[in-house]
Amino acid sequence: MSAADLISTFWKNVSARDWAGFGALLAPDVVYEMPQTRERVRGREAYVRFNAEYPGDWIVEPLRIVGDDRHGASYIKFSVDGVAQDGLCFFDLDDAGLIAHLTDFWPQSYEPPPGREHLVERF
Amino acid sequence: MSAADLISTFWKNVSARDWAGFGALLAPDVVYEMPQTRERVRGREAYVRFNAEYPGDWIVEPLRIVGDDRHGASYIKFSVDGVAQDGLCFFDLDDAGLIAHLTDFWPQSYEPPPGREHLVERF
Repeated sequence: MSAADLISTFWKNVSARDWAGFGALLAPDVVYEMPQTRERVRGREAYVRFNAEYPGDWIVEPLRIVGDDRHGASYIKFSVDGVAQDGLCFFDLDDAGLIAHLTDFWPQSYEPPPGREHLVERF
Repeated sequence: MSAADLISTFWKNVSARDWAGFGALLAPDVVYEMPQTRERVRGREAYVRFNAEYPGDWIVEPLRIVGDDRHGASYIKFSVDGVAQDGLCFFDLDDAGLIAHLTDFWPQSYEPPPGREHLVERF
């Protein structure tokens, strides 16, 4: 399975709360990292629990899934209680085609810096 | 050229301040969007200027470049005056193999929410 197909299945299983199917995509020693909070989750069991225990009645909508054989990325819309947030995740697969490493980002809104108003519009 | 090769050339040209080579990768009606600030830049000329005028003596280091034929993503380290920031960008190519759309994110650090300390370590 290509990285893009694996990532697509990954998000389908997350959406379905299919934690057994989700875990089957992960290497036993998978590492999940969030550089913004400098948090790291190690191992399939802990990372499945991290997702299964995530609070709220959330909905996931993949907007982009890209990749080659061993590496890929997704851009998703994550909505909980009507509030939507963007999530960006980079995936590395191991030799067995399982997810070995994830680097995940949750960007927040901020005010644009001054000095580029002549080049941009706001939406 | 695959999306991954194009993105690799994109960052090489940015690093080299080769704005003519950079512009040659872009569709004339390229659209660059930053969802965090809700800013949009339209057109090759404005987007080249947006990059060429970006302030500071910055350095770009690509950490991941992934993609298929028409879509791709990059995860870069952007450093200016010794301060590093992560940049995530999703690219869509047009039929001519030029970059037609970019969605760019600049995530900031934040404190982790409580309740998951039993699953995570900090780095």
